[in-house]
This record gives sequence, structure tokens and C-alpha cells, in this order.
Amino acid sequence: MEEKDGNKLSLRIQEGVPQPPNINPDVFTKNSGKKRKRYSVSEFVEGILTGNRTILSQAITLVESSLPEHFNPAQSIIEKCLPHSSRSIRVGITGVPGAGKSTFIESFGLLAAGMGKKIAVLAIDPSSQNTKGSILGDKTRMEKLSVHPNVFVRPSPSAGTLGGVARKTRESIILCEAAGFDTIIVETVGVGQSETAVRAMVDFFLLLMLTGAGDEIQGIKRGIIEMADVIAITKADGGNIIQAENSRVLFQNALSLFPGTQSGWKPLALTCSARQNTGIREILKIIEDYAGYTKKTGYFEELRKQQEVIRMHDMISEYLKTSFYNQEEVKSLVPELETELYKGTITSYKAALSLLNKYFKR
Amino acid sequence: MEEKDGNKLSLRIQEGVPQPPNINPDVFTKNSGKKRKRYSVSEFVEGILTGNRTILSQAITLVESSLPEHFNPAQSIIEKCLPHSSRSIRVGITGVPGAGKSTFIESFGLLAAGMGKKIAVLAIDPSSQNTKGSILGDKTRMEKLSVHPNVFVRPSPSAGTLGGVARKTRESIILCEAAGFDTIIVETVGVGQSETAVRAMVDFFLLLMLTGAGDEIQGIKRGIIEMADVIAITKADGGNIIQAENSRVLFQNALSLFPGTQSGWKPLALTCSARQNTGIREILKIIEDYAGYTKKTGYFEELRKQQEVIRMHDMISEYLKTSFYNQEEVKSLVPELETELYKGTITSYKAALSLLNKYFKR
Repeated sequence: MEEKDGNKLSLRIQEGVPQPPNINPDVFTKNSGKKRKRYSVSEFVEGILTGNRTILSQAITLVESSLPEHFNPAQSIIEKCLPHSSRSIRVGITGVPGAGKSTFIESFGLLAAGMGKKIAVLAIDPSSQNTKGSILGDKTRMEKLSVHPNVFVRPSPSAGTLGGVARKTRESIILCEAAGFDTIIVETVGVGQSETAVRAMVDFFLLLMLTGAGDEIQGIKRGIIEMADVIAITKADGGNIIQAENSRVLFQNALSLFPGTQSGWKPLALTCSARQNTGIREILKIIEDYAGYTKKTGYFEELRKQQEVIRMHDMISEYLKTSFYNQEEVKSLVPELETELYKGTITSYKAALSLLNKYFKR
Repeated sequence: MEEKDGNKLSLRIQEGVPQPPNINPDVFTKNSGKKRKRYSVSEFVEGILTGNRTILSQAITLVESSLPEHFNPAQSIIEKCLPHSSRSIRVGITGVPGAGKSTFIESFGLLAAGMGKKIAVLAIDPSSQNTKGSILGDKTRMEKLSVHPNVFVRPSPSAGTLGGVARKTRESIILCEAAGFDTIIVETVGVGQSETAVRAMVDFFLLLMLTGAGDEIQGIKRGIIEMADVIAITKADGGNIIQAENSRVLFQNALSLFPGTQSGWKPLALTCSARQNTGIREILKIIEDYAGYTKKTGYFEELRKQQEVIRMHDMISEYLKTSFYNQEEVKSLVPELETELYKGTITSYKAALSLLNKYFKR
């Protein structure tokens, strides 16, 4: 494989992991079976910077693509958008099943968009491998929001490649910001591994909960409560208002027991109702306060920089593991060793060493 | 390097990582500058199984040793002890600075030892690189406990090798159990990375907290509260009793808001005083209840098996990272890329790829 200076991106060696080839980043007009127009990298960048949504959309598709020939142009586009990506607030939103995330985001997004904010909603959907299905689903879910002129709704289908969901969402954020969106909402489902990844790419993390404790929250992953900057009890309307307020107090007390956040921000518990449009404006205000506060302390910038460094290391770690567990000998030995560990006939240390030995011996 | 069947433990390839050589596990009498008697693997195992503390102590030293020639005999001893290591309860104890962990463990240990239990206390001390200093420190900290005939107190100094602190503590647990100790207490400091590692090697996790919320708990790491099976508010004596009870209620409420535990166990908040010896018996009783409950449901066994498998994968991951970041080219490129990430001139993805490229190209 030939290499160009400054463009040594190709990964070799490992089987089972996509290997991006070297392609001239400014020639991206060939190899397309589809009918829509294909843009060059500079056309893409220009289109994004002027806020052209069709081009933004296609650029995200390119970023999400697992085709090797899409790799280098996508990375070039992102790199050229990078200097234009720091003027936004990135808000992660998750919640227990049934908390009404879509309804909340629609309400929240319409309010913010009505105030002149430009909103991009990126939804991480780990269950879907199908972009079209997801888009359709999301457009249906957020009917009014998705057609608002200030709003761009886009799901990120899950993916198994390096960085997975998180990488692609992270890079879609950059593109959206370069296109002029100032409020980026990253939605996730609250039950999987994706919350930690999302927390690591946003400035502010909002957790939507239902009234009542116990069974209602069995669906959420442990540790998520402690990630929240705000916990909002949803559906605080009708006969539910008093119960919601009780829950709010309980959560506010719980939050006060937690160790302080790195930012110095004191997490808050609130109630809201998307149906009655109450509490939504307050949340928007709090997010602005949070941004103001952390920008003043310098934490806002610092966190974003830290996040980039952490993501680099996370991706390396993820790649190393993928490479390791895809090696043929390792792959065939793992189940055997796991069985032995279950029987208690070897130590985990010895098992680890056997596998490492197989891997590095090649 | 020669290899023996079933003993292919040596790791090659990576610089900067200790490479255990192959030594006949039953010949371990040479190369010792120290004066104390050196045992063969079978003498070690026999000594441990008959409860000889001097031999147990030396075996743990062997496990903790980073000398290559100690590697294989240590692993052989552990493996032979493994079938005798499942009749205990493993209790992780952590707490905020000032919560009085040593005092609590002394009180708790003396009570349990007085009831005929055989207690081993393994303390993880990440700040200490010096075994002798740690031992001395611990014996001073737990004056009465450390001389009780039913008790064995032993610190695990921190270590930077594969598996680090966690591996050595994990293997020391096995040796202690084989020596007949039925209650293994693993103490950790509550501020570092070690809690997650300790949680992953114990059956039950106890968190010691002080009265009051806010500043007092700034010293604890986020996420630890959600790991606890019991939160005990310490120093509930004298003028502190009412405040402690108030804190207990707050924590109990907070615990009820968390998602359910994998075991189905409902975490509890209690108060105790090591000075007045109140609440300690209750905690001992709860641990017994917990063991009884989880043994009945099968979760106790299942968790231990899962822990072994998880540890294997964790050690692999740790080794892969060590190997990666110790590679010369990677080592010299990382600071450069981190600077670029801070400046915002590259993406984390591209930075990760550059490093992976360097690493796999050799």
C-alpha cells in the first residue's frame, strides 16, 4: 500500500477490522452507484459552512459510512470544519424508558428554536443498524421539530467500527456546529453503554426521570444518576404534580449527598411537563447559566479539550481490544478459558497470560 | 526461550514490561540473598493449607514480588490453592477520608474474631511502594486486631505491573482463603481508581461515610455510592447521634432512588460507632444475611465466576495498553498529539489512528 506524507492513516495488520485505504481527499466523485450529486471535499466544506442542510446531511452520511473509500474524504471534511466548531453548547439527554424523551426534546427544541437558537438533534440509536429506518422513526417521533426551519434532526445508527457510535456522533457534532447550529442535542437511550460515551462528548448532561422511586427506574443503568447536571422529573402535570414534586425533593436530596462535580456546578432536580409546556423554559435557562458559569471558570473550554484527549485514548483502547479478540488463535481459545474460569480450574491471571502469549507470538 | 508443556507463560515482544521466564515451579530454593528459609511450591501449599501464617506471609510476598524468578512458583502455589478458596465471604470496605476505616475494621474484626470467625485484612495502599512501611503502618493502625489469634492483617503495596494492585490483592485473597480464613476484608482508600477494582473482587461492598452532606464527602470519587451494598454512617456517638441518624435517612432515601442491584439486594444505610461499639454487630449480621440471600438465589457463586472472567479481560486490556504506550514511537508521539488536540488542530480519531499506525507498523 502506498503512503502519502502526512496521510499515513491506513491501518494494517489486523483482520476483521476495516482498513482505510489512501485516497486523494479532493477526488471524491467516482465509485458511486447512487444518483445524487457527489461533492468534492472543498464543496462539502463550503456547503457546510454556508449552512446547506442537504450537503450537511450527505457529509454526515459520509462520516457514518463504513466504506473504505469514504474514510479519507470524511476525515478531511471534519478537519476543515474543526476550527468552526466551538461556538455551541452540547447537551446530552437521556432518560428512563417511558420518561418521554422525544416529547421533551420536541418541546424543548421548539422553545429554543422559537427564541432564534439553531438546534441540531443527534439521536444515538443502538438498536438500529438501519439509517433510513431511524430517520423515519425520528422524524415521526419529533413531527413538529423536524420541520422547523431552525432545526436539524438526525439519528446516528449504531456501528461496530473503531469508535463506534460515539466516534460518528462526535464527528457529526463537529459538522453540525460548522454548519452554524448553536445548540447540539445528543439523545441516548439510558439503558446501554452509550451514556458514558455521550457524557464524554457533551458539555451538559440532562437526565429525564419519572415520578416515584423503585420499579420505575429499574430500566436505567447504575451510575447514570451521578453523571447528571440536571435531573428533570417529567410528566409533572394533572394528578401527577404532587408526586412529581415529591420525587424532585428526593432527587435533590440525593444529589446533595453526592461528591462535588469537577466543574463545581451543583446538580439540580426539577419537574417539567412537555404536554403543558411547564419547566421547559427553566431547563433552557439553567443550561445557559451552566454555560455562562463554566465559561467564566474556564471549565467549559478545559473539559472540551480533555474530552478530545480522553477520546483519543478510548479509541486506541477499543481498537487494541478489537484487534486482540479478532486474532484467530485468541478467538478460539477464549471460550475454552472462560469455561475453565467458570469451573475454577485456572486463575484469571494465568488465563490472561495464555491469551496474550497467543496474540503476541504471531 | 524454552517452553514446557502447559507452562507457556512467558510474554515476549514488549519492552518495558516484565517478562517472566520459565522456571521449574518445584525448584525454588536458589537465588535468594535473604536468610529466611526458602520453601518449595509443595511446601508452600502444604504450609498454607495447614494454616501456617509464616508460610502464608511468605507466599504473599512471593505473589507480590516483581522478580521474574518468583513468577512461576507464585502462580503454581495460587493454582494449587484455588480449589480451597471458595468457603469465605469477601468484604470490600472503603470510606471517605476521616470516616475512621481502621478504627471500624478493628472493631468489626475483633467482634467477628471473638465469635470464632477467622479474619484476614488485606489493605490496598496505593500511596505506598514500600511493603515494610505499609505493614508497620497497618499494625500500628489496628493494634489489637493485628495480634488477635484469629486474625491476619496484611497490606498490599501498590504495583505497576500487569493487573497491578488488583491482581496481587486478588491472589492474596485466594491464599488467605486456602489458609482457612473465612472472612476476607479488603480495605481501600475511597479516593482513587482502586474502588472499582476492589468492588470487582469482593462479594459485598461497604461504604463508610461521615454525617452531613456536602463538603465532608468531597473526598470520595463519584460513582462509589452506587457501588455500596451498605452505607454506614460512622462516629454515631455523643452529640453526633441525631445528625448521624438524619444522614442515614438521607442516604437511605438516596439509595431507594437508584436502579436495582444485579443481585436483587436492596442496599441499606445504617449508623455505627466504633468507639461505643454500636451498630457493628448489625453490620456483621447484614453481611451474613447478604451471603445467605445471594447463596440461595445462586447470585453469590455466579458473581464470583463472572468476576474471574471479567478480571481476565481487564488484565488483557491493561496489558495491551501498557504494551502500546511503552512502544518507543508511540511514547514520543503522544505528547505531540495531545498538544494538537488541545489546540484543536486535529480530531481525536485522526490522532488515535496515527498512534495505532506507529504501533502496528513495527
